This record gives sequence, C-alpha cells and structure tokens, in this order.
Amino acid sequence: MRLSKYFLPTLRENPADAEVVSHKLMMRAGMIRKVAAGIYDYLPMGLIVIRKVENIIRKYMNEAGAIEVLMPAVVPAELWKESGRWNVYGKELLRFKDRHDRDFCMGPTHEEVVTDIVRNEVKSYKDLPINLYQIQTKFRDEVRPRFGLMRGREFIMKDAYSFDTTDEGAEKSYRDMRDAYCKIFKACGLKYKVVEADSGAIGGNFSHEFMVTAETGEDFVISCDSCDYAANIEKAPVIDVWQEEDEPLKSVERVETKNMKTVTDVANYLGVPEKKVVKTMILRAGNDDIIAVMIRGDHELNMAKIKNFLNVPYVEFATPEEILKSTNGPLGYSGPIGINVKIFADNALKGMKNYVVGGNEKDIHLLNVNHGRDFSIVAFSDFINAKPGNTCPKCGGKYVITKGIEVGHIFKLGTKYSKSMKAIYLDKDGKQQYIVMGCYGIGVGRTAAAAIEQNHDEKGIIWPIQMAPFEVAILPLNDDNEDVVNLAETLYIKLQKKGVEVILDDRKERAGVKFNDAELVGYPIRVNIGKKTLENGEVEIIIRKTGEKISCKKDDALSKILEIREKLYNED
Amino acid sequence: MRLSKYFLPTLRENPADAEVVSHKLMMRAGMIRKVAAGIYDYLPMGLIVIRKVENIIRKYMNEAGAIEVLMPAVVPAELWKESGRWNVYGKELLRFKDRHDRDFCMGPTHEEVVTDIVRNEVKSYKDLPINLYQIQTKFRDEVRPRFGLMRGREFIMKDAYSFDTTDEGAEKSYRDMRDAYCKIFKACGLKYKVVEADSGAIGGNFSHEFMVTAETGEDFVISCDSCDYAANIEKAPVIDVWQEEDEPLKSVERVETKNMKTVTDVANYLGVPEKKVVKTMILRAGNDDIIAVMIRGDHELNMAKIKNFLNVPYVEFATPEEILKSTNGPLGYSGPIGINVKIFADNALKGMKNYVVGGNEKDIHLLNVNHGRDFSIVAFSDFINAKPGNTCPKCGGKYVITKGIEVGHIFKLGTKYSKSMKAIYLDKDGKQQYIVMGCYGIGVGRTAAAAIEQNHDEKGIIWPIQMAPFEVAILPLNDDNEDVVNLAETLYIKLQKKGVEVILDDRKERAGVKFNDAELVGYPIRVNIGKKTLENGEVEIIIRKTGEKISCKKDDALSKILEIREKLYNED
Repeated sequence: MRLSKYFLPTLRENPADAEVVSHKLMMRAGMIRKVAAGIYDYLPMGLIVIRKVENIIRKYMNEAGAIEVLMPAVVPAELWKESGRWNVYGKELLRFKDRHDRDFCMGPTHEEVVTDIVRNEVKSYKDLPINLYQIQTKFRDEVRPRFGLMRGREFIMKDAYSFDTTDEGAEKSYRDMRDAYCKIFKACGLKYKVVEADSGAIGGNFSHEFMVTAETGEDFVISCDSCDYAANIEKAPVIDVWQEEDEPLKSVERVETKNMKTVTDVANYLGVPEKKVVKTMILRAGNDDIIAVMIRGDHELNMAKIKNFLNVPYVEFATPEEILKSTNGPLGYSGPIGINVKIFADNALKGMKNYVVGGNEKDIHLLNVNHGRDFSIVAFSDFINAKPGNTCPKCGGKYVITKGIEVGHIFKLGTKYSKSMKAIYLDKDGKQQYIVMGCYGIGVGRTAAAAIEQNHDEKGIIWPIQMAPFEVAILPLNDDNEDVVNLAETLYIKLQKKGVEVILDDRKERAGVKFNDAELVGYPIRVNIGKKTLENGEVEIIIRKTGEKISCKKDDALSKILEIREKLYNED
Repeated sequence: MRLSKYFLPTLRENPADAEVVSHKLMMRAGMIRKVAAGIYDYLPMGLIVIRKVENIIRKYMNEAGAIEVLMPAVVPAELWKESGRWNVYGKELLRFKDRHDRDFCMGPTHEEVVTDIVRNEVKSYKDLPINLYQIQTKFRDEVRPRFGLMRGREFIMKDAYSFDTTDEGAEKSYRDMRDAYCKIFKACGLKYKVVEADSGAIGGNFSHEFMVTAETGEDFVISCDSCDYAANIEKAPVIDVWQEEDEPLKSVERVETKNMKTVTDVANYLGVPEKKVVKTMILRAGNDDIIAVMIRGDHELNMAKIKNFLNVPYVEFATPEEILKSTNGPLGYSGPIGINVKIFADNALKGMKNYVVGGNEKDIHLLNVNHGRDFSIVAFSDFINAKPGNTCPKCGGKYVITKGIEVGHIFKLGTKYSKSMKAIYLDKDGKQQYIVMGCYGIGVGRTAAAAIEQNHDEKGIIWPIQMAPFEVAILPLNDDNEDVVNLAETLYIKLQKKGVEVILDDRKERAGVKFNDAELVGYPIRVNIGKKTLENGEVEIIIRKTGEKISCKKDDALSKILEIREKLYNED
C-alpha cells in the first residue's frame, strides 16, 4: 500500500475524552473515530487489525471443529421471552419496536437465537455434538461507555455455542474451546492468563476468563505464587481461617464521631485498628429484598460472591431512602443493632469480639459490639475480595495480584437455555433429553485494544507482528533524491512479491513526520532510506519492539527484512 | 469438509412462505433460516457463499483504489438531521432511543456517517480524491419483507462513497466504480446488464443499476435491439413522436358506462380504440399538492418520471377522500373537466382529438373531449413506461424488454450531502469548495439470491463455480464397501492438498439421499464413487451445469476434476 493513496489521519494530540492508553493511541494512530458515545468508525488501519484478529480466531475455531454461521443483529423479543431474559436483562439490552409495533432487541449475545436454530434442526444424538460460532457486530447499551473499543456499545465479538448430549461431552467441548482460545491468544502474539471466573448474567455451571496482562488493565487477577491457580477477583476465594479473639465481652458504648468520614478516620479517632471497625452494607438483592452484609473495615466487599451466595440475579447498593426505611438512619452510619433486615457477615467476623459498628444515626458509632449477644447473624460466608498474601485454595501458596484485560470468556451453561427453550434430542433409546450447552466469547476489538495496552511506549503502539496493520514500513526520507525514491520503490515491490504486508510512506512529508507516524502506528519493522546512508550503499532497519537499529547494505535489505520478520513471528 | 461433521439441514419440501425460487432453494439447501420477517440466520453453506461474494467485491474494490473501513450499524440521529433525511426518510428508517433517551437509527445507508468522517479528516485538495467502502450488515424496516434474501430487513451490503474536488473527478470515480462493478459481477460468474436508472431517494445527478438477468426477476429492463443502450423501466424515455390527429373537433357528449370497470370495457362499449380512452390519475406530489396526470388508455403511468419532472421527494396516488375533494367525483371516474387541480399530460396526448375521459361522476364518461377547448394542460412530458417496440433514444433502434434483479446501484451524488453537512476542502488557491460525491452499493445477499434465480433447475441450485459453497462434492455411494470408502478418502485428501474446496459426503445415508442433496445444494462438480463402477476401476464425474456424466479411470479422477474445475472458472 502507498500511504499517499491511503487514509491514515494521525493526530498529534491525545483526544480530550480518551482515558486509557489504547483509546488514545487508536485515535491518534488513525485507527478509529468516535461517532457517538461507545460507537466508533473503524478506519482502514484499525479495520485491518480487527480482520487479522478475526482471521486468527476463525482459523483456530475451525481447527477445533466449530462451524461458522451468522445470526441476525436484530432479534425478535419472542426468543428472549422464551428464555426468560427479556425481563431480567437490564437496560444494556437495547429494546425497540419495528414499524408494525413488534418488540425487538439488538442482540448483545445470541444464546436464544442459536438455541432456536439447534432445537429446530437437531433431532437425534447422531446430530450432536455441534459447535456453531459467529463473528458479529453486537450492541450493549452500556450506561457509561468509555475507553474506546475496550468498553464500547457497538462492538465486534466472536461468540460460539456448543451443544452436547451429556455433561461429560459438554466438558470436553469446553476444554476444546479452552485449548483453542489459548492457541488464539498465543497466535495474536499476546501474553495472557486463563483464570477462573464468575459466570455472571449468562448463568451456567462454571467459567474461565482469558486475561491479557497489562499494567494498565482494569481487571484484577489473583494468582498463586507457587502453583498455576488463577482466578479473577470476583471469584478467588478467601480461605484464611478466622481467629477466635481472646478477650472478655465489654458493654456497648455509644460515641460521637463527628466529621469522621472513613473507616480510617473512625479507627484513628477511637484508637482501634481498622479491622476492628466493621462496615455494615445495606444492599438490595434481587428485586426488592433489602439485606445487610457486614465486613471488616480493612476488607473490600465482593458483590459477585454475595449474589452467588444468595442465588439472586443481581445485588445493588440500597438507595438512601431504602437505608432510612430499613435502619432508621442515614447512609454512612448503618449498623446491625435494631435494624429489621437479615444480616449476613463475612467469615472474618466469626471470631471477632468488641468491635465498632455504625449507630444508625448521624455522627454516631457503637463500641464493643458483639454478634450473638447484641444482634444475630443469619449466615457467615466469603463476601470479600481476595488480597495478595491470602492463601491459595489449591496448594496453600500465597496469592499475588496482577492486572489484566478480559478478552475472552468461556462458560459451561449446562441446560439453562435448553430447558427454558425446550432444546431436546432423542437419545439411543429414543428418549427425549435436554441438550447440554456451553458458550464462548472473544471481544475482537477488545483484543486489539488489549494488545496496545500490553505493547506500547511513549511514542506509540508496538504491534505484535501477528496483529500489525502492516508488517513493514518503508520510509524514503528524501523525496527529492532519485536514488532514495528508486530504492524505496524497488524494495516495496520486491517485498510485496514475497507476500510481505508492506506500506510505502511516499507522502511528501519531512522525515520527522514520517518517523513519528511510523512509531505511532507501530509497524514492527521500519526501513529508513536516506540520502546520507545511501551514499555508503546502506539503509537502516529498525525493529519497533526492541528499538534495535541495523545498518545493512542495500542489496541485503530484502533478505534481512525477511529474516527479521520470520524471527518476530517465531518469538514468544 | 466432511459432511458428517458439518451442519447442512436440507429440506425436502418448499417452505410455505417462500414465493420465489431463490428463497425456496436457499431454505431447502440449508443456507438460511428465518428468525423473523425479513431477518435470517445464515447457516454454514449460506455464509460461505456470502463470504465468497464479499471477497470478490473486496478484490475489485481494492484494485480500483477504494479503501475499506467499517462504520457503525447504529447511527446517531444528529447526523441524519444535519443531512435533512431524518424527517424525509419514511418508516423504513428504524428509529429508536437509547437508555439515555437519545435518538438513533439503524443505518440503512451511510452517506451521513462517511461524510462526517471525511469532513473531519480531509482538509485540502491534496487529500482528495478518496473512495471509502465498507461491507456491513444494514437494516431497512421494509413494510412487506419477502423473497428471502432478495428483500430482507437485515441484509449485508457493500457501500462505497467517493469524494472528489471537481465534477469531472467525480465522474471519473463513477466510471471507475462502474468498471469495477462489471468486473465483480463477471467474477461472480453472472450474466448481467448495466442500465440507466432513476436516482430515487438517495438523490443526485445520475445513476446506473446492475441487473442480473433472470426469467424470474421482478425488475423490467429496457434495452435496444441494435445498440448497447439499456435502462430500467422507471428511467427509459419514450421518445416516439406524437401524431397530430386529423379530424374535426366534435361536441362533448355525456354517456352512461354502467359496470364498465376497465379501459378495455369502456373502449369496447363505446366502440373506440383503447388508446382513445384517456386515464386521468389524481396524485399527491410532495407533501400536499394534489395534481392530475393524463395518459393514454393503453399506456402505463411512470411515477418516477412524474416525481422527477415535478422535482418533489415523492409522488403517491391520492386517497378516495382527496379525489372527492379535488374532482367532486369518485375514484375510477376522474376526468379533466371542471376539476380544480393542475393537469399534466403525457406527450402522447399532444396531437389527440375527440377522446374519452372520466366524468367525475359514478358510471359517467365524456366523449369527444379536447384539451385547449374543454380544459387546459399545464405541461406535456414523458410520464409513461416504455414498451417493447418504442424507439431507442441513442440509435433509433427498437426497445426490447427483459427481466432482471437489481444487485448493484451506483449514483453520482454531486454536492447534495457535502452542502447540507458542510463537507468542504481548500482548493489550490486556498478557497473553500464543496466536495463532490458519489455512492455505490451492492447487495451481497441479493447477489447470492440472484445467482440462484439465474442458475437453477427443478432439482436445485446450479452454482456458478465462483460462488459455490464447495467446488467439488465426493459421494461414496456404498458406505459398507472398503474400496469405495478408501478411494473417497484418498481423493478427498488429494483434492484438499491441491487447494480444491471439496466436501466429502461421508454420512451414513442412501445413495439417493446423497444425490438429491448434492443436486439441491448445487456443487458444480460431483464425483460418484460406487461399488459397481469401481469394479471396472471407474468413477463417475458429473458436471451440475450441463448434466454431463464422465466415466473416468479412478487414477485419472484427480487430474480430470482439476481440468473440469479450471474450465468452469474460465467459461463465460
């Protein structure tokens, strides 16, 4: 491709609304443009990267025996009503009516549609297993779309759905997909972790996430320092045993804690450790159940664990009105004494004595509170986020924490959808059985964004060669010098003939502009052809990833470039 | 691909709601499934065909210098309001609100979005020309979606937009696209015509349609029997010179024409030729203008010509209420005398005398009516459909009529969108100028459907090899015979190694089932491997298109298949 005939509108400045690195760099490198909140144009170079990711995904999905289909983006409400998700799914499901006033939605995920295909076409155990996948533009009406392609509303996703006769079959399909995903992210040239995950709104038995590791990631991954255990923070259990505190029970005292906003403030003021200040959170679980959950002051609440423990579709913080109604007190001063809701507590509270709680009254805390004596706890469980240093449930090692970006998620669904939508097959004995399902997603744009979060420097993107829009950029640095221009043209054509994806920066621009754009866009290999070095018969080859500069006789340039390219593809 | 591991749910019966051949056959051949009216799943074989068409399009678009991008499916209303189309476009534009109550639509076409990109990124004449295209899933909320992929609501389209500094430049871009389209449809292995067309709702200066010819097509194409002129029926001019009738004017007579429903009825009853019975059509042009248009009884009204003549966004038949209001008479008896609307007439009326018109009264016609004397005509123009035998405007030859399916449409838009959306560039003198645009669409699914309309028989589809889901099908006819199975496997692997797209029907099915499915799906080349012929060391190769059966020594099968494949690709 000749850059003079291409469309690469790079920007010098970071766009004001771009918060994360990948968003900034995709905008600046002319890969995407914003059309509305969370809705983007893919400009030419951005689209090439997207297509490369898609093709890598396609290759390994096909290799794993999955079959590509394409389902519609606009989905009739009937199917979602059958599965029961029409009423459960929140506002992220964009619902609308067509001209005949029939209900439709933009499919954010396609369990219903694919289950409908399979229940109509699959009759017998002989037709199974089957795994259908698609690569499709989806829509989720996120409340706060941001971070560019990282959390868009309209986004490209690969979603696959497996259908098996048995649970064991479904687990094999799940493992096959897990293996295929590992191959996919490796083939993208990315460093990643497979972590245990919560199965969230999709439902089902168990799930794993694929996390691209990056300092700038927004997800926390808990892993073990001595074995291969890894889970996301929503999932990673805290199994450290609680300690029975050995102190006599004291009498409850009411103290004023004026202007003490935080646990730290209260602890310092009262002269107790933070962990002795117990937080009481008032939550709404499911549609209308208000509950209280108590955790230690130095711990973080984990909503996913509460949701799973209660087996409800969602858990949210109660509103100030709901808090007032159930505790008689304001937000920020909730405590367990005298409230009329069920109280749950984190395991860490089990052995605690004489702790501090909110007084359900502005500026008031209570000291020396004890469960059992002063109030009742319905149940103890693990309701907090894991921390570095916590004990690994698998080997007893210690947790460490790293950051990552979720790019893939696989779920064993079981019969959740096949039961509600009556997807059945006849077994060998002619008996009707529910099909056992799994589903498997990869965010295509998110993978491209994650690659940038993992691979960039202050100058721009450092594409893994597998995902780069072009493998090689040729920069003739002196447009007025015939030798420079001729060599650039010759090399360009020779590389093309060798099947190399090469871009020739033939724009009438200064060398500095060409350098900056090349580094911003992040071509893995750059060839500088300048008048001065060419007087010695040399060109300069620069490897973006290492910064290495290689001076090279012009006649050796082609073979040297091919050699570097080969090497980059084979590096881990 | 092994069919036993694939997903090909063929149907024996035609689905009840399928009216046209391509719809029936795509359903029966397991290519598509209906999800809702006008909304389909693409099953694996259907998707392969779609992707083949897309890749052919992509190849020739890139070759013509167009650059691929991808714009969003969900488009903010603001852009459509800027262009003025938000209020003009009918209910086909699916409008909805997001969770924050902001207006959006599903983009049925992307002039606004692409113009927004270009006005933001293009500053100077140096950045032009540019041609951006995308292959995208679009949505048009058709009132009566039908005919499968032929007129769906959700559909895949290639849309391209060219941006030039001058009108001449825009015309060159237009010609380049025209040439690219010819290459595309040729490369799809289709017979097609390029015809002059009306530019319709998209607006702009001129346009051409690409029609795949087919007996079953729903569009009428007018072409010349002696030159290359071709136009669609909306556009083809009728230039036959009118004749001054040489007869004295007679007096108007009022006659009762009870139960005479049609022009033919009235003509027979009154004993005059049909062409002497003049129809007066009451129409609504634009928002509220009621007009009358008169045409000869043996002619057909052409709404597009009226719309263009009046330069209004649309023309519709008036309602019975509107007819009553403007003529004082009922629907079916309108005439020009005594009505209070502007009257236009087709050129053919110019020299007519003493003709029959409606009496604006039930069961009443008027005889011996003459314009000029009895009423006034505001203007004469060409308001009728061309017919076979009309004179070609280019060479004086005669029109013939054929049927076709519109698969592509190209428009020179001029500055319609660049003016309303302020897409400007700075010319060489630093002066602001409007960018001159063109737009170019191909219906991807429609092209696949049109290929079937053009190429099928009573047994099923006859794919042009360029679009076929698989080039070769191997049918082992006796699953229990080791020689048959081994030869099928060997040939399958050898063909794959040669890069042939081959499917092996390794299902445990009777030969008849395999034959029927193969003919239904329409693989261009089929290899029957049966016990009996194999005893003589032979296999049978069948060419779907010609029905030709070739007996062939098993060791020659590979080279024979490759030879036939080569030949099929090179046939016109």
